[in-house]
Amino acid sequence: MNFLGSHLLSVDQLSRDDLAHLSEVARKLQPVARREKVTRVLEGAVLASLFLEASTRTRLSFGAAFSRLGGSVLETVGLTFSSMAKGESIADTARVISGYADILAVRHPEAGSVAQFAQTSLVPVINAGDGAAEHPTQALLDIFTIEEEFAQRSRPVDGAHVLFVGDLKYGRTVHSLMKLLTLYRNMTFTLLAPEMLSMPDGVVGLAESRGHRVYPITRLPDDTMEVDVIYTTRIQRERLQGEQIEGYSRDYHVNRFFVDHMGGDATVIMHPLPRDATPGSNDLSVELDSDPRLAIFRQTDRGIPVRMALFSLILGVADSIESTFRDVRWHRLAANT
Amino acid sequence: MNFLGSHLLSVDQLSRDDLAHLSEVARKLQPVARREKVTRVLEGAVLASLFLEASTRTRLSFGAAFSRLGGSVLETVGLTFSSMAKGESIADTARVISGYADILAVRHPEAGSVAQFAQTSLVPVINAGDGAAEHPTQALLDIFTIEEEFAQRSRPVDGAHVLFVGDLKYGRTVHSLMKLLTLYRNMTFTLLAPEMLSMPDGVVGLAESRGHRVYPITRLPDDTMEVDVIYTTRIQRERLQGEQIEGYSRDYHVNRFFVDHMGGDATVIMHPLPRDATPGSNDLSVELDSDPRLAIFRQTDRGIPVRMALFSLILGVADSIESTFRDVRWHRLAANT
Amino acid sequence: MNFLGSHLLSVDQLSRDDLAHLSEVARKLQPVARREKVTRVLEGAVLASLFLEASTRTRLSFGAAFSRLGGSVLETVGLTFSSMAKGESIADTARVISGYADILAVRHPEAGSVAQFAQTSLVPVINAGDGAAEHPTQALLDIFTIEEEFAQRSRPVDGAHVLFVGDLKYGRTVHSLMKLLTLYRNMTFTLLAPEMLSMPDGVVGLAESRGHRVYPITRLPDDTMEVDVIYTTRIQRERLQGEQIEGYSRDYHVNRFFVDHMGGDATVIMHPLPRDATPGSNDLSVELDSDPRLAIFRQTDRGIPVRMALFSLILGVADSIESTFRDVRWHRLAANT
Repeated sequence: MNFLGSHLLSVDQLSRDDLAHLSEVARKLQPVARREKVTRVLEGAVLASLFLEASTRTRLSFGAAFSRLGGSVLETVGLTFSSMAKGESIADTARVISGYADILAVRHPEAGSVAQFAQTSLVPVINAGDGAAEHPTQALLDIFTIEEEFAQRSRPVDGAHVLFVGDLKYGRTVHSLMKLLTLYRNMTFTLLAPEMLSMPDGVVGLAESRGHRVYPITRLPDDTMEVDVIYTTRIQRERLQGEQIEGYSRDYHVNRFFVDHMGGDATVIMHPLPRDATPGSNDLSVELDSDPRLAIFRQTDRGIPVRMALFSLILGVADSIESTFRDVRWHRLAANT
Repeated sequence: MNFLGSHLLSVDQLSRDDLAHLSEVARKLQPVARREKVTRVLEGAVLASLFLEASTRTRLSFGAAFSRLGGSVLETVGLTFSSMAKGESIADTARVISGYADILAVRHPEAGSVAQFAQTSLVPVINAGDGAAEHPTQALLDIFTIEEEFAQRSRPVDGAHVLFVGDLKYGRTVHSLMKLLTLYRNMTFTLLAPEMLSMPDGVVGLAESRGHRVYPITRLPDDTMEVDVIYTTRIQRERLQGEQIEGYSRDYHVNRFFVDHMGGDATVIMHPLPRDATPGSNDLSVELDSDPRLAIFRQTDRGIPVRMALFSLILGVADSIESTFRDVRWHRLAANT
Repeated sequence: MNFLGSHLLSVDQLSRDDLAHLSEVARKLQPVARREKVTRVLEGAVLASLFLEASTRTRLSFGAAFSRLGGSVLETVGLTFSSMAKGESIADTARVISGYADILAVRHPEAGSVAQFAQTSLVPVINAGDGAAEHPTQALLDIFTIEEEFAQRSRPVDGAHVLFVGDLKYGRTVHSLMKLLTLYRNMTFTLLAPEMLSMPDGVVGLAESRGHRVYPITRLPDDTMEVDVIYTTRIQRERLQGEQIEGYSRDYHVNRFFVDHMGGDATVIMHPLPRDATPGSNDLSVELDSDPRLAIFRQTDRGIPVRMALFSLILGVADSIESTFRDVRWHRLAANT
């Protein structure tokens, strides 16, 4: 796609070149994201951040990214706009708000509704999550994380073995990320999930049609493996029934035993967050928190440079941005870190 | 009125010279509102935007206008302040918040309460809507829209024929706008509404006392007419009873038939938005959306330059503002527009 | 404490030198707080303001202070984060958000939870109130107010007589302020409260161990006194029972009679606000509003320079800040003031 002036609604819009381009710009913006450099390239621009469904961290990440480019952020949060509650169509709402802002980030609980926003918006719209359908910026920060982690290990992403584990049916992030990974060459995907929570056929078929190997399994293999990426998600236990719960912990609970069994020294452990810390949730174990292979916080941190890169490309300032950098003049970190 | 340092609480404060002055400044600020120019004239200033009653679009419009002048925006939204819930008086709340900000925009569900805010505020207060009473900035953007649309048609507003149609009893925007239009010369007002939703006597009397012609009617006339402005509002159908509903659609529903019957080639069609898109609402028809006479989106867009002009005049920067303009450096519009 | 890069979680961290240092910086920043000067020293920096419990005025005060230093403010308000609602630990939430921002201001309904935030945050955390436990920035603006009011009267704070009156048991602000006042020399504290709402033993003991005089009393003395500070708080009447209510008004209601009885010409009258204006609340009387000794609005105004000073010290820009000042270019006050 040509990012300039475009809406980003779905990962289906993106080619491998697009991913490379975005990662290159995100890499250039890391000094800003890391608070070493300041830029004001978008000073005077306005982001309207419309979270018709609450998502605090995604909203704050978009807001921080736009603020660090020098722009101003206007937000609204809640199930409905007050005007929508009065019967206003999405077409009217989008047209009106797009008269105030330079770019919109929109989250909406219903699949397809962000695309409807884009139809009458005067300015570019970024999908910040539309129900179970898409969350493209999460997939992009996941790709950037894999790129960066592999680069640190001096390895190419092509040819990698990625294990997705957990709820692969309802987790939109795993669908979007696996779609983007099919743009690479010669991939192997192992999909570990209970039968009832398995990856949709469409995503599996896409990977196979592009020549990748896909191995859906329902239990932890007896033999050890050494995958390159373990990507796990929060399990919605409320959807599981009877027998699945029995063997759940050993088979799908990513803890030290799981990582020893399925990973190796160079394995990258990922999770889109939040992880469920309530007892018995069996989400990604905190016993891995000091394991350097655990990339989950580097992953969330990378949401900032990725979203900055996206804003920069869509608004056409990516090429000139480095010339606007200046040094940060304040103290950057907590004394206890 | 002298805008400098003043509260704007009611359209009753405004003379025709004030309207001309405000429109002149709004016109100067259009390049900023249209995202062709950037100004940072209010860099360092703070707007406190207190929406004690939710109104997403009005809040975002005030916020965008202040942001585009370079200022920072602090907001609170909700039925009450947490401090008001603890029994704090409006006098105390206003005094405290006015110690933080340079200007306040206040929406409140109760008539007269914004004027109470102004009494103890250290800084100017703009009424962003107080219940059924006033919403002066909406009336000002309506006036600016009429001025601009008429100027494009090379016609003066003096002598115009304005048709108000719909709920003329509860719609505060039509009251405020009609009051401001009485400041012009030789106007004709046709007021088309069911008996139970007719324009208040006070507004009609004001227009008549200033020498204008006022024709209240309850049904669509049999003969065609050619008014200069058709201004319609969302009907609160829940207030209508029995027989009125029968003839409602043909008489008060602004659609292609209505416009053909009452308008001409140069008629300006307006609506304060939101319009109710739910089936059977009979609000302004989407079949007019591609009609160039439909000014509703140009109307809402003009909220930005009008509110910028108001901030600039009240804070005393209107005269010097053009000298602070610089070019926008980013891409301005969606690729599909 | 060394402010640079530090968390501010409790007044217990502070020495008298710290108070003097903070007041000195706050004094330097008064021209910015008073809207005579603009600084952009923190341009590019981001404050994440997390109010997991609503507190409009404190949130707006933090936001205004950071905005006036040139920074951007991201906020979230509400009982829980959406991610916390999904079972996320405080440790994860704090780590994630701290990847977006340069500094956090956190209010939380539970005592100790802000300190938990600080444990995994990459950036400094300021406690904006954690339940009944601490609200250190309120105590700091109270100290700054006492310093400034005494300086105007050309008197030292050492040796002063401070009267605390009202609910001394549940009001966290009086605990924190009295703790900080024990850092001065030779103080006298009179504590006027019903038995059931008396100052906790720990605070009284601390004052006595540092050599100050403490006089807990339950009724207004028969003889007049002349204290230097009267500090009163909102009474939670719902906690009072039977006989206390009888004599309440005369003994604990700070009105003209009370001030005549207990104060003198130079007495400073303070209240952390909000004050309860509902009839029968017996909170600080509005009949004192025109009394120049009433410092309550100067007190709340001083929240801005104090919070600016805190941000400046923690982020390491306090020393260079005056060199960044420039004149305000807009009109500063309402025409009616």
